[in-house]
Amino acid sequence: MGHNAGAARALELVRQQAPLVHNITNYVVMNNTANALLACGASPVMAHARQEVEEMAAMAGALVINIGTLSPPWIEAMLAAGQKANEVGAPVVLDPVGSGATTLRTETAMRLLAEIDIAVVRANASEALSLRPGLAGAGKGVDSRHQVDEALEAAKSLALELGAVLAVTGQVDLVTDGRRALRVAGGHALMGRVTGMGCTATALVGAFLAVEPDPLAAAAGALAYLGLAGRQAAARATGPGSFQVALLDALYNIDPPSLQTAALIAEA
Amino acid sequence: MGHNAGAARALELVRQQAPLVHNITNYVVMNNTANALLACGASPVMAHARQEVEEMAAMAGALVINIGTLSPPWIEAMLAAGQKANEVGAPVVLDPVGSGATTLRTETAMRLLAEIDIAVVRANASEALSLRPGLAGAGKGVDSRHQVDEALEAAKSLALELGAVLAVTGQVDLVTDGRRALRVAGGHALMGRVTGMGCTATALVGAFLAVEPDPLAAAAGALAYLGLAGRQAAARATGPGSFQVALLDALYNIDPPSLQTAALIAEA
Amino acid sequence: MGHNAGAARALELVRQQAPLVHNITNYVVMNNTANALLACGASPVMAHARQEVEEMAAMAGALVINIGTLSPPWIEAMLAAGQKANEVGAPVVLDPVGSGATTLRTETAMRLLAEIDIAVVRANASEALSLRPGLAGAGKGVDSRHQVDEALEAAKSLALELGAVLAVTGQVDLVTDGRRALRVAGGHALMGRVTGMGCTATALVGAFLAVEPDPLAAAAGALAYLGLAGRQAAARATGPGSFQVALLDALYNIDPPSLQTAALIAEA
Repeated sequence: MGHNAGAARALELVRQQAPLVHNITNYVVMNNTANALLACGASPVMAHARQEVEEMAAMAGALVINIGTLSPPWIEAMLAAGQKANEVGAPVVLDPVGSGATTLRTETAMRLLAEIDIAVVRANASEALSLRPGLAGAGKGVDSRHQVDEALEAAKSLALELGAVLAVTGQVDLVTDGRRALRVAGGHALMGRVTGMGCTATALVGAFLAVEPDPLAAAAGALAYLGLAGRQAAARATGPGSFQVALLDALYNIDPPSLQTAALIAEA
Repeated sequence: MGHNAGAARALELVRQQAPLVHNITNYVVMNNTANALLACGASPVMAHARQEVEEMAAMAGALVINIGTLSPPWIEAMLAAGQKANEVGAPVVLDPVGSGATTLRTETAMRLLAEIDIAVVRANASEALSLRPGLAGAGKGVDSRHQVDEALEAAKSLALELGAVLAVTGQVDLVTDGRRALRVAGGHALMGRVTGMGCTATALVGAFLAVEPDPLAAAAGALAYLGLAGRQAAARATGPGSFQVALLDALYNIDPPSLQTAALIAEA
Repeated sequence: MGHNAGAARALELVRQQAPLVHNITNYVVMNNTANALLACGASPVMAHARQEVEEMAAMAGALVINIGTLSPPWIEAMLAAGQKANEVGAPVVLDPVGSGATTLRTETAMRLLAEIDIAVVRANASEALSLRPGLAGAGKGVDSRHQVDEALEAAKSLALELGAVLAVTGQVDLVTDGRRALRVAGGHALMGRVTGMGCTATALVGAFLAVEPDPLAAAAGALAYLGLAGRQAAARATGPGSFQVALLDALYNIDPPSLQTAALIAEA
């Protein structure tokens, strides 16, 4: 099955199965990511209390961990939920928001990677670079200054070190497990002018992971789906407000055949 | 006064009095419910610190408690605010989001019901079933699998057990105090594809409770108002993004005479 | 340089420099204010953990403190971040949401003003009045009952007492450092029917403060920019939902020359 067909098949399975996606994510984007997951066809739930995260993670088809607005009790809950997800075989996707920007974020991202088996790390280039052992702090964090194009070899070796698929998003996204590598093209500049677009990408990767056992295919498929929605939304938008509205409509209206036709996934 | 006239009268009073509605609610929907309350004509405030909830609840026309993203400090604040609301005579509406899905949620919903005099419980069918003493955990939680139609007798007896009006929302909503029962029809399928629609229903019930002393009428009126807004919004929407925008516009633009004409409230 | 030219110049600098604006703000509006800052051209970051706020504030061009959903750990973080911002010379803007409504809010606003050097306080009239030493609690908090027009002398003397620029927003905004005073006209009534509009004003003041050393000019410029966006958005809106969408589009599309032409800033 080709990459586009795989993306379409995963979207179809999300629509059929409506997998429960458990999110421990940041305050800023909870609403956006819940809505994106619903538009995709998944069933989002947000739960962060140490007292319930294991029970919730045990029911979930996938777990999304996003460190965008960290605090110590949330870190404990992320670790507990991640370990439970590992135990029951639910895939985990990590969004190390702002890793490299502060010590708390970098160390938390590292600790989550050390103590949880993460299927996919979705990051921008600076965040990804901050995850290199011995290079913590080298990245610039939230802003992405490093060209994705320069990062292919670095991403491959980092993916191998982390033992995870690494999805580095930027103008063109790069997805690699260290051996295989794909590029996903076709987002739009307006995606950088609304908050939580990376977090939305990560949440959608969670939905695709819940139905697609190959994390490389799941990550590339989800990014291609969001990229297509972004292009469609930008064509209807007059600014970031109308873009966000049109993006949710597009995520909802894109069907598997459209995704198969229009996804821009290629070997890197 | 007929049910539709009662709904229209309550909306008119909300617009005239702009009651302060104190919300202790979940992170995902705070923005949505604040905006829905403003569009309705109420004055929302969100406050959750143990140090201020009693002072805030004592000023409020109604208190909305929603357990969608629980943690222990918030539970303590909910209990304190609810008891203060009881003391000053402000009605309380409870949204037991995800009760039945995790032990923390089910037990918290039960504890709130035991320690606070709740005027209205707004829930989906699975959440409602989880509240039956001795049957905790039987529900499926966030998803609603039980048909509202099968639930009339169960809802009536549960309402009597809880000593509260029970508003079970689904394709058709059922509102009962155990003796009287109303159905509210006329939402739209898109309402299930955006996050926080149930939470918005609960918040609007809070606004109506602040001005309408009969909690059955308040709950049915608020649900009819939201249902009408949902139908109007769906007619203008091309997906869940544009639906949410149109819903807020509709909540704002519906006037009492329109609600009196178009509300779909009937004896159950 | 005239006031309008100053506003346009500040917007141009925000677009050129994309200053990092560190927000410790309330849960309800985080998404709105992040998006408004992005539409303006700034780089927002939200971070509230005691463990990282100093590191984040030390990198920021400005710090925004908003007490809309307080709790004790957040208060400690606000104090630490504010002191660090003072240390590195990053200007601080305070939004005392609901000061006067509860003791926790009034006392926290007072404590922040006592322990941090605040460049601008952005408040409604009731909140501003609650900040007068010896008059704490006199204000009504969230609702603004006092006419801005009556408040000119009071605002001037309060600004002197606080040692900060005071920006009191209402139908017409008043900005004063105690000696100079400006009025900013031209918002729209719909701005009072969506949540977080005051918080958005405060966040935009933060962006302008990051590039404009005169806090009076920064505050007036940001309010004029938001007011213009509000007027443009209202012309395209059919209610508060479409207004919010159009507002973000307008913030994004207004360029410095348009702001210079259409800003409504005058000597008070």
